[in-house]
Amino acid sequence: MPVSSDSGQPFAGDSDGQRITCAPFPNSRKIYVTGSHPSIRVPMREVAQSPTAGEPNPPVFLYDTSGPYTDTDAQVNVMQGLAPIRLTWIRGRGDVVEQAQPGSAFARARESDPGLERLRFRRTRTVLRAASGARVSQMYYARRGEITPEMEFAAIRENMRLEETVASLARQHPGWNWGADTPKAITPAFVRDEVARGRAIIPANVNHPELEPMIIGRNFLTKINANIGNSAVSSSIEEEVEKMVWAARWGADTVMDLSTGENIHETREWILRNSPVPIGTVPIYQALEKVDGRPEELSWDIFRDSLVEQAEQGVDYFTIHAGVLLRFIPLTAQRLTGIVSRGGSIMAKWCLAHHEENFLYTHWDEICEIMAAYDVAFSIGDGLRPGCLADANDEAQFAELKTQGDLTRRAWAFDVQVMNEGPGHIPMHLIKENVDKQLEWCSEAPFYTLGPVITDTCPGYDHIASSIGAAMIGWYGTALLCYVTPKEHLGLPDKDDVRAGVIAYKIAAHAADLAKGHPGAQIRDNALSLARFEFRWQDQFALAMDPDRAQEFHDETLPASGSKLAHFCSMCGPKFCAMEISQQVRDYAARLGVSEEEALEKGLHAMAEAFRAGGSEIYTEK
Amino acid sequence: MPVSSDSGQPFAGDSDGQRITCAPFPNSRKIYVTGSHPSIRVPMREVAQSPTAGEPNPPVFLYDTSGPYTDTDAQVNVMQGLAPIRLTWIRGRGDVVEQAQPGSAFARARESDPGLERLRFRRTRTVLRAASGARVSQMYYARRGEITPEMEFAAIRENMRLEETVASLARQHPGWNWGADTPKAITPAFVRDEVARGRAIIPANVNHPELEPMIIGRNFLTKINANIGNSAVSSSIEEEVEKMVWAARWGADTVMDLSTGENIHETREWILRNSPVPIGTVPIYQALEKVDGRPEELSWDIFRDSLVEQAEQGVDYFTIHAGVLLRFIPLTAQRLTGIVSRGGSIMAKWCLAHHEENFLYTHWDEICEIMAAYDVAFSIGDGLRPGCLADANDEAQFAELKTQGDLTRRAWAFDVQVMNEGPGHIPMHLIKENVDKQLEWCSEAPFYTLGPVITDTCPGYDHIASSIGAAMIGWYGTALLCYVTPKEHLGLPDKDDVRAGVIAYKIAAHAADLAKGHPGAQIRDNALSLARFEFRWQDQFALAMDPDRAQEFHDETLPASGSKLAHFCSMCGPKFCAMEISQQVRDYAARLGVSEEEALEKGLHAMAEAFRAGGSEIYTEK
Repeated sequence: MPVSSDSGQPFAGDSDGQRITCAPFPNSRKIYVTGSHPSIRVPMREVAQSPTAGEPNPPVFLYDTSGPYTDTDAQVNVMQGLAPIRLTWIRGRGDVVEQAQPGSAFARARESDPGLERLRFRRTRTVLRAASGARVSQMYYARRGEITPEMEFAAIRENMRLEETVASLARQHPGWNWGADTPKAITPAFVRDEVARGRAIIPANVNHPELEPMIIGRNFLTKINANIGNSAVSSSIEEEVEKMVWAARWGADTVMDLSTGENIHETREWILRNSPVPIGTVPIYQALEKVDGRPEELSWDIFRDSLVEQAEQGVDYFTIHAGVLLRFIPLTAQRLTGIVSRGGSIMAKWCLAHHEENFLYTHWDEICEIMAAYDVAFSIGDGLRPGCLADANDEAQFAELKTQGDLTRRAWAFDVQVMNEGPGHIPMHLIKENVDKQLEWCSEAPFYTLGPVITDTCPGYDHIASSIGAAMIGWYGTALLCYVTPKEHLGLPDKDDVRAGVIAYKIAAHAADLAKGHPGAQIRDNALSLARFEFRWQDQFALAMDPDRAQEFHDETLPASGSKLAHFCSMCGPKFCAMEISQQVRDYAARLGVSEEEALEKGLHAMAEAFRAGGSEIYTEK
Repeated sequence: MPVSSDSGQPFAGDSDGQRITCAPFPNSRKIYVTGSHPSIRVPMREVAQSPTAGEPNPPVFLYDTSGPYTDTDAQVNVMQGLAPIRLTWIRGRGDVVEQAQPGSAFARARESDPGLERLRFRRTRTVLRAASGARVSQMYYARRGEITPEMEFAAIRENMRLEETVASLARQHPGWNWGADTPKAITPAFVRDEVARGRAIIPANVNHPELEPMIIGRNFLTKINANIGNSAVSSSIEEEVEKMVWAARWGADTVMDLSTGENIHETREWILRNSPVPIGTVPIYQALEKVDGRPEELSWDIFRDSLVEQAEQGVDYFTIHAGVLLRFIPLTAQRLTGIVSRGGSIMAKWCLAHHEENFLYTHWDEICEIMAAYDVAFSIGDGLRPGCLADANDEAQFAELKTQGDLTRRAWAFDVQVMNEGPGHIPMHLIKENVDKQLEWCSEAPFYTLGPVITDTCPGYDHIASSIGAAMIGWYGTALLCYVTPKEHLGLPDKDDVRAGVIAYKIAAHAADLAKGHPGAQIRDNALSLARFEFRWQDQFALAMDPDRAQEFHDETLPASGSKLAHFCSMCGPKFCAMEISQQVRDYAARLGVSEEEALEKGLHAMAEAFRAGGSEIYTEK
């Protein structure tokens, strides 16, 4: 902040680059917690609270995915991209080499086409890749016992200054329960061990040094992904960059660029250079563009070029539908809704046309070599996921899931980080089976599910129908929840839809963390509940998942600024507020020094006398 | 339809009564299934579907709570109220007497006050109550082995013409799975047995003959309740009537009028006379109005008068906080958020002020006698429910729940129908314990929960946070889910909020029915999924929980009416649609006569040849 568009060059060809959303949330500021080296600066959002009857309330520290866009001290220039905060770490490991020009033929063609000048991000850094024979993945380092700066960063980030927050809250409110057990901080060594074991991943391509490292695994905070991307029908590059910033602002931990229209190479570059969160893609979409949308004309060479192209740009994880095997395809013929994954249907069509095994499967080892050279993580696609509840947990789906497990272990042999994609559409009572089988068959690699929706009857509300399934599957062990917006099944999401989808999934992910007993997850809930009980309206707004919406809704019925201090809201009006009456009961008990045990022993007779004697108006001004 | 406001009298004093929402949903019409007597006419919504490649698709029958407002043949006049469809059944039983004037002193005063003429609904029927010594509850009849018209009505309604729908769908699509087992219709005898056992209730006051009977119990479709009601701060009578009609339109099975402002007697009368769904209230709110908002001045006599007043108007169930016992109140003192139920806090304040046991508890038997005389059902309140996750499942809450069980069994001794209210705020992993304990301690009386929200961090989105908890608790066995709107904790809901809350809860309730395997619940999902797969856009909209929203969202990116017939949407664009590709794969397989087994046996080599020979353009125009 402030965002500028630099020289006279138009951003994304058709506007001035001023549409990127910045500014911090209310009562909040960006802080950085420094790690063992000054270059490890872990961002958090500090929410200041107002005092209670003169007594200060401690600040609350929140996990912050929004990047420099909410930092009033940062200079963000979308034309230059974000600062490459990881670059010294990557170069410092001494295992990467610079490439004079892109290894992808397509990238070379795009980047030398003068007609695309106006659309192009002007990149100044050269592309990196592993030196010959080296593997540069976080899994490789972890297995060697190294704690990388990325691992330390992720560990500090998970903790949200947990220990000091718990301590200050405990001092202030000794009687209250701040979580089932004393929360214990996550250590960098634990992060390393989980990555080494394959139970967590840190998606962090060496060519995406701008990203703020984060970890995905079921022993960490549940993460969410937001899909963006244009299609042939609508949306521009600038809209997509803004959607990425916007999604990260509301809490998306990763963003997938699913563009299928024109200029997806250029769109992706703009997104990556300005993204503080890991970016995922489905490279087969672009490969298909290269053969004019005819799946049967796809080939390993064309696909390989797309992999290299995107790995060089800095994409952090790839969805690859290598589990759609030829022999599984007929298992979908009697389904109510056949194959609904785009990638899955493309590969199915290819397999049928050639009567050959899926080339992603047959070339898996070569793919792994490419992934290891840039540290791109796998998100092994579930191309045969069910497209409706009636098809849930069927033979086709589970046949592919077992294959995903085989592919996972083969990738691990190359030190490539892996997560597995899962459905989709599942009735509630069949959700847990998905997680149980995935953990078993895929050796506990992180699970990454799309929802699931728990009914098919909700077009226009699938963010809700799927956040129900997402919360449950997160609780059962899914590490990354792919959001669904209200436009799912209907059209391409706009900014409002992205916000609605992200918030619905922040709710699901946070609910999963609470149910799993993740260290410190309950701090935010308790702080907000106490602010609510004490009528600290501004604190309640600031601690909410969406502060702007909370305040806006409150103000619709009680807009006067005085009502932010009022001890009631328009739901019940001043006389009927339970919170208010309850506060009176407690204040009254406190004035008489009545503890729970005393009250039970003495009975409440004297209190009743005193209460009536006092005119039954016990509430006194603070 | 059409709605008229009759003579020159202004509706609700300040407008013309034309604001009530009518008109059917798209491609839908109201049908009535006739029972064993012509007066038993059970409403359903018939959704017509368009054909698939010339083959007709069967209509889908949906449970319909919207009343005559969506019936194009009905004449609705809000000044006269709905037709009293149950009146002949009630009178026919010969166990009620007419009352020349209200038994409630307050009602007599209000109804003879000329200053209120302008606000008053002009009721033409006299009040009914049980003849001396009689009990007129559905539970009483059920225990005697009688199947009342109300029971038969509810049974027919639950089935949604299940058997013929299943049969027609099975004929059309023999290969598909229309539910785990062959759905079995619910019989009137089963309804009777469940009501007799106390495991289900049919809320149906003899003074609310306008209602369309429905059943609440965990072996039936999961139901939802919408709260409406003005407060001292905002909203008018007309707005409340419209909110009731609006809530029922979107799917509210019952509506609670929680008004706490002025003219609540008159507001309630307007709502009842125009409501096709059961109406619930919390009579203590009105009793408190009568003592100018001072809980300590409440008395049994004042409360009793409110009970009679509302029972005579036709309220179908009462929330009564009789489980808030004096000795439980100190258990809340160390809570993070004390007592958050309005009714609970009122009674707690009364108990403390008088140092006496809760008069609702001590007068329980007299309350039961009143309930039995009109067939008002209990909704035993949970006044000590937790107000935040940190307080969930605590000693205070469970002490009250056990007491609710005692009160339930005492009410059953009077043949009074009972349900039990539950929380509120519960993390996911503690939800099931609530249901298990309620079923055990309250002898399987229907459970009626408010949400629960599964995190406290979502003001502005509590409809989502709570629909997650609602879906789960519904699956575990809750029979009635009380909705939460986006304005919860912030302000009074407006019409948009009511719609958002109702739809979120229809999703939760339907998801619960799917997970419980309720007969026929999956028919709607399968029909919509098939419409989606076959690009029958209009059918998809019409079958959606909110057809208007689905169509509106679709049209935002593809507004041309031609795109309703298109084989893609703007999410993926024409070339990348998985549904489209999958359809091609299936069509192709079908043309070659390849079944699943054959395909596996023969391999797909010949198919691949044929595919390539055909120019790889397999999709042919239909």
